Amino acid sequence: MKNIHIIGVGLMGGSLAKDLKILYPSCYITGVDSNENHIKEALSLGFIDAEGAIKNFANSSLVILAIPVDSAILLLPKVLDVVEDDTLVVDFGSTKSGICKAVESHKNRRNYLAVHPITGTEFSGPKAAINNLYKDKTNIICEVEKTAFKLQERALELFKKLEMRIRYMDAVSHDKHIAYVSHLSHISSFMLGKTVIEKEKNERDIFDMAGSGFESTVRLAKSSPDMWTPIFKQNKENVLCTLSEYITNLQYFKGLLENDDFETIYAEMKQTNRIKKILKGIS
Amino acid sequence: MKNIHIIGVGLMGGSLAKDLKILYPSCYITGVDSNENHIKEALSLGFIDAEGAIKNFANSSLVILAIPVDSAILLLPKVLDVVEDDTLVVDFGSTKSGICKAVESHKNRRNYLAVHPITGTEFSGPKAAINNLYKDKTNIICEVEKTAFKLQERALELFKKLEMRIRYMDAVSHDKHIAYVSHLSHISSFMLGKTVIEKEKNERDIFDMAGSGFESTVRLAKSSPDMWTPIFKQNKENVLCTLSEYITNLQYFKGLLENDDFETIYAEMKQTNRIKKILKGIS
Repeated sequence: MKNIHIIGVGLMGGSLAKDLKILYPSCYITGVDSNENHIKEALSLGFIDAEGAIKNFANSSLVILAIPVDSAILLLPKVLDVVEDDTLVVDFGSTKSGICKAVESHKNRRNYLAVHPITGTEFSGPKAAINNLYKDKTNIICEVEKTAFKLQERALELFKKLEMRIRYMDAVSHDKHIAYVSHLSHISSFMLGKTVIEKEKNERDIFDMAGSGFESTVRLAKSSPDMWTPIFKQNKENVLCTLSEYITNLQYFKGLLENDDFETIYAEMKQTNRIKKILKGIS
Repeated sequence: MKNIHIIGVGLMGGSLAKDLKILYPSCYITGVDSNENHIKEALSLGFIDAEGAIKNFANSSLVILAIPVDSAILLLPKVLDVVEDDTLVVDFGSTKSGICKAVESHKNRRNYLAVHPITGTEFSGPKAAINNLYKDKTNIICEVEKTAFKLQERALELFKKLEMRIRYMDAVSHDKHIAYVSHLSHISSFMLGKTVIEKEKNERDIFDMAGSGFESTVRLAKSSPDMWTPIFKQNKENVLCTLSEYITNLQYFKGLLENDDFETIYAEMKQTNRIKKILKGIS
């Protein structure tokens, strides 16, 4: 890994750059970002060496797209237009069907690997970048068979060095499942935050009465709208499906409560307690 | 503090007993619990000295009720029946209107202080008890004026030693606000867990794809149905009100998504990001 280009030097791209600087001490990393301040911050934080430009990406080992999914769909074809045989191009977006479709007929499709590292924090921007963000996290790789062997190999070597757990999946299944275990949680959290803020105009009261349980359920409501609006847009159909089921379950619970059916409420909670076992091991 | 009796030796009562043993090394603590195994565990963990019985509570400095709120309503009058002038009786329940009403005309109402420590974990039982569970946590005291001065003083001294932050509130307001910042979060989390478990029959897939964000939003779905069913029962009207508003907000979001109104989705998320500022400081 010599010349590396990172498009999007925020939490995801910046954290990767920080790890790359340690894993490949002699690598040279350029950053591209639509926000000029982010480039300045990334330079001053030292995890990129210079500002980059897509037109200069030809002679490089690795290009990472770590930007909102709508921008990634626009930029990936442009990146593939300029790279040469030996450049691995990876995107880190939370939706995979749209982007895979956007480049399915591109002459350089074989340079591209579609991945989704299941990691992140509720913070964003270059200053949010941390070392080891990817360590022990799941990395979902889609349509691996469409990527050139030697570039698959380079990617796997990198993910191994980052100590990630690899899972292979087709892009359509990825988008369907991830709607349940990630996208829906964000809507649940944002709307919970909205409900409480609307009702509790006196914010001091929220602060005083809220405990760690509330904090935990609304944590994702701190997430970046720049990142999340395009995700909901890209994965609209799956998200609508999960959201409908969630609303149906909440209405069901409401009905149980209205009818004083506390026996069923108890049984439903007991049943859902299985989540303990399911979650064991998620860090 | 000499003779202390704790009714309910699970997470809340057990954690308090552990701290009391340090704060008042010469105190003698008995435990009462409907679950005989809990008494055995509490004895073997050493945070109670003996099994207690309500009929023997007359000569004691402190009685704590740390049990599900429906049991507390039944037992509090029986405890007040037997205590003498100098016994402080405190309950730790998450709902306060019902229990305050249940003893409003009791001849020993002045022995009782209604409090709600905003703390806990998603675990339960004596083995879940930990030291410093109450440290730096908010403690809401209701109807303080109905408690005898000297017993108010004793309670405040204890809460000070536990390093808790005290807030005074009437019981009706408490139940209304807490529905928003605590009870609703639990329903949101339980139904999110249910939605995902129902859909994702293959639990291995959930595990592999779920990240810390999902874990955070469904954490409360690990909570004890024994504790939470009675809370929803006691606070039914307030909970129904918050739940309706939450469902309305989710339907609103769903409508925005169906109509491709991503501009408003963005604006709503941006607006709810204020939760960052509000939550700052909640541990």
